[in-house]
Amino acid sequence: MFGPGRLFSLLNYLNKTFSYGTLLRYGGHIFKIMKRDGMGRIGKITTAHGDITTPTLMPVIDPTDIILKPKDMRREFGSELVITNAYLTMLHFGNDPVTKIHKILDYDGPIMTDSGGYQILRYGSVNVTPEDIIRYQDSIAPDIATILDIPTGVGATREYAAETVRVTLERAKQAVKIRSNPEVMWCGPIQGGLFTDLVEESARETGKLDYHLHAIGSPVELLNGYRYAEIVDLIMAAKKNLPLDRPVHLFGAGHPTMLSLSVAMGCDLFDSAAYILFARDNRYMTSEGTLHLEDLSYLPCECPVCTNTTVEKLKREPEVEKVKLLARHNLHVTFGELRRIRQAIVEGRLWEHVQLKCRAHPSLLEALSRFLSYGKFIERFDPVTKKSAFYYSGEESARRPEVLRHQLRLKERYKAPPLSTLAIIPEFGGKQLKSVDLERTHILKLVPPFGVVPEELDEVYPLAQNQTPKEPDAEQVRSVTEALENYLRSYGNSYERVILFNDHRRWGKQLEKACESVKEKLEIVQL
Amino acid sequence: MFGPGRLFSLLNYLNKTFSYGTLLRYGGHIFKIMKRDGMGRIGKITTAHGDITTPTLMPVIDPTDIILKPKDMRREFGSELVITNAYLTMLHFGNDPVTKIHKILDYDGPIMTDSGGYQILRYGSVNVTPEDIIRYQDSIAPDIATILDIPTGVGATREYAAETVRVTLERAKQAVKIRSNPEVMWCGPIQGGLFTDLVEESARETGKLDYHLHAIGSPVELLNGYRYAEIVDLIMAAKKNLPLDRPVHLFGAGHPTMLSLSVAMGCDLFDSAAYILFARDNRYMTSEGTLHLEDLSYLPCECPVCTNTTVEKLKREPEVEKVKLLARHNLHVTFGELRRIRQAIVEGRLWEHVQLKCRAHPSLLEALSRFLSYGKFIERFDPVTKKSAFYYSGEESARRPEVLRHQLRLKERYKAPPLSTLAIIPEFGGKQLKSVDLERTHILKLVPPFGVVPEELDEVYPLAQNQTPKEPDAEQVRSVTEALENYLRSYGNSYERVILFNDHRRWGKQLEKACESVKEKLEIVQL
Repeated sequence: MFGPGRLFSLLNYLNKTFSYGTLLRYGGHIFKIMKRDGMGRIGKITTAHGDITTPTLMPVIDPTDIILKPKDMRREFGSELVITNAYLTMLHFGNDPVTKIHKILDYDGPIMTDSGGYQILRYGSVNVTPEDIIRYQDSIAPDIATILDIPTGVGATREYAAETVRVTLERAKQAVKIRSNPEVMWCGPIQGGLFTDLVEESARETGKLDYHLHAIGSPVELLNGYRYAEIVDLIMAAKKNLPLDRPVHLFGAGHPTMLSLSVAMGCDLFDSAAYILFARDNRYMTSEGTLHLEDLSYLPCECPVCTNTTVEKLKREPEVEKVKLLARHNLHVTFGELRRIRQAIVEGRLWEHVQLKCRAHPSLLEALSRFLSYGKFIERFDPVTKKSAFYYSGEESARRPEVLRHQLRLKERYKAPPLSTLAIIPEFGGKQLKSVDLERTHILKLVPPFGVVPEELDEVYPLAQNQTPKEPDAEQVRSVTEALENYLRSYGNSYERVILFNDHRRWGKQLEKACESVKEKLEIVQL
Repeated sequence: MFGPGRLFSLLNYLNKTFSYGTLLRYGGHIFKIMKRDGMGRIGKITTAHGDITTPTLMPVIDPTDIILKPKDMRREFGSELVITNAYLTMLHFGNDPVTKIHKILDYDGPIMTDSGGYQILRYGSVNVTPEDIIRYQDSIAPDIATILDIPTGVGATREYAAETVRVTLERAKQAVKIRSNPEVMWCGPIQGGLFTDLVEESARETGKLDYHLHAIGSPVELLNGYRYAEIVDLIMAAKKNLPLDRPVHLFGAGHPTMLSLSVAMGCDLFDSAAYILFARDNRYMTSEGTLHLEDLSYLPCECPVCTNTTVEKLKREPEVEKVKLLARHNLHVTFGELRRIRQAIVEGRLWEHVQLKCRAHPSLLEALSRFLSYGKFIERFDPVTKKSAFYYSGEESARRPEVLRHQLRLKERYKAPPLSTLAIIPEFGGKQLKSVDLERTHILKLVPPFGVVPEELDEVYPLAQNQTPKEPDAEQVRSVTEALENYLRSYGNSYERVILFNDHRRWGKQLEKACESVKEKLEIVQL
């Protein structure tokens, strides 16, 4: 299609370097990564009681008060893994003789136990040691067990936070020595709270130990306070320092609103006690937020609960029945969102999905913006080609890794081909090119939000699969003019002539301004 | 709280004038409007077979091949009104002796009939006259009937389009004289296609006739081509010229993606044949688009169909069963979206909902932008106070009617109070004000995306109920600086001193630039 000059430019641009994607493709021995998008992934965890597809949600089961049975949950919601509390189980069912956790919960699928760190911290117990909790979990034999960590909490001082990290790490090291049941996989929790350097240290050091997966502690208080941007910093501090081939559990983050963003950051497991806690408080989850039952005039949902009743009937149900119905609704909507997220990963549309979900609340939008500020790190994970088109859905689209990647490659690897004339053309149509000598002319297209695209890169994903509203918004104008300015500063010297085909209606005077650095040789053709 | 000077400014700003809201509250005799948001409304239509809540979706029933029965649909989806085709019914069931449509469809709820204009146009029939179709509908007695219109279509020339408008109007006039069954309400279709002046004429003239409701023709081809912005122009041309107290039916626009935007434009009735047509083609609707069954790895939905099967099982179902399951899923997801829309109207959150849905596709985003370009017209309908907070969810938020209203009022009605000093402060916190004499100082807050808010307006909805991400995006910066510039140009002269408390981290140098018109008396305090 085009000569060696242009081909050389294309090859430079595509030049393959190390990418985490390559590494991730092989995964760990219990965790196999099947599909990736952003830092998110669909994976498979192999346990003694069957495989689990991730990302997944673990409904929290109170072993002393089972309202929805795990096996019914599997049937109704498709839940694969449930989580229960080892400490509460020990208190209630005793230590002697030991009953296996699968018997206690009457469930033959995968079960995870949380250690009960939070309860022990809060309600205190002089009789239980970290070693007891390890040995007890080994004996009740869940598929995944958790060591007894010390939650940092949001209000912690730096000293206290450092202490929680130190003690949790010490216990993690000790637990590796004590563990005895080879059927049980172990989770090493990460602490540090709002002190991201402590979180980094906790992740780095715990990650060196022999653990099958890791849990990131303490987001619940932040979630309840809509402090989503701080959760992003917490998760990213951990993710940047954990082994990439281990699944990551985000403690207590089972509300559908932030699920997709958490998955995009590379979290694989979520637990939800919220489904039942919210139900007891008449709170009705939607994938955009939470509503109080009394504020509902319609049931804004298509789940089996909501299509089998009306809002008036639901409000009149006896308390016990109402809580059960709300709990089932809350689980349906959360698992529905989980399937939407998985499907989006398969299609390569996770970014679009996250952007949509984060529009539901200004604090989520802030969190998305915070996540995108880690762009250079994210870019190394995000697949280079995807199945679906790139949809522009607002200003954050301009900060997606695909866009950043193009801009980095253009800046760092690209070399303009040896052609004497540069023609800058708007994205759509190409009639204007009749007037130039195509042999000697290099063509640069304006492609918001990617910026500028030299003709030889036109078939590279997603530059050609880019769908953007025709009337440019402020961000589209900014992205194009800034990129044009940068391109001309880098490569403007190599051309003898620069012709700008200017579409005033779309770009105003911005393009001319962006051509400042080549103004002596600039020719403007108004369209 | 503040003296007479400030109070006077507040009263000027609030000064009540005629608003369509007042008019709409009373509604027409068959149509009662209960709640409003944007141009959207929740209403009640009274028919001979019971009340219908709007906005509503009418599943299209093929009288010759009933796959899902209307009474089962009511039970499963909560559908109240169904629509069938009078012409096909006449062809199949004959004219003599006449069977009532409620008997044919075995349904005692409200039924609407479409005339069959499209079929007659397409397949031709010399034996049927417009009068026949009127008389036949009167005799089969649906709750709502439709005259025989001539669809304009998208490919029409201007001449042909004008002809369809003329003939449809002539028939509408004639039908008023022929109609004989007082139990039947009549729908007068609006034509004109892409020629918005013809649509305006069609709406204006048909609206003068004695009809109970109106239908806007021809959006289906545009919908199928993702030409959503053109649909916006079509709907707005009709809505601006139709009587406000009559329900409006948007022909054939039953896909959940554009439902909320159409409702926000004031459409009340939608019909869906798509649920079954899509199902036959293995197409699976979501409220964000359409997916092919073969592209699904998960069922991204919580409806009873999707929670009772898996994607693998669904793909293996026998054809007839699969079509039925997909049709039921498609209806569930559409009715779920309808309930979400109704609930959003009740909460005063329709704008947020529409903005969220329009992020699903660049063409929808374009359509939303087009709709917002009718801001001045929309503003007259949008309620002045709402139940819920104003959530900023991206650049279109700055173009919402609430924002426009504030800017118009500030420009046209407001008068700055007689105070000698103006203090311009950032939105958050207020410690900086310790240094000024509050008695003599007028305080102006920066409130993106509303712009600037004089202190005495601070409690006016939604200026105080405004939630915006803390780190301003380009649009927030633009809205604040532009508003500040305008305010100072209008009222800057009335102050002796202007103090700008400048937060560089948030606003950069933009605020100083916006104060250009008062630079001689400007004092800058860096925060």
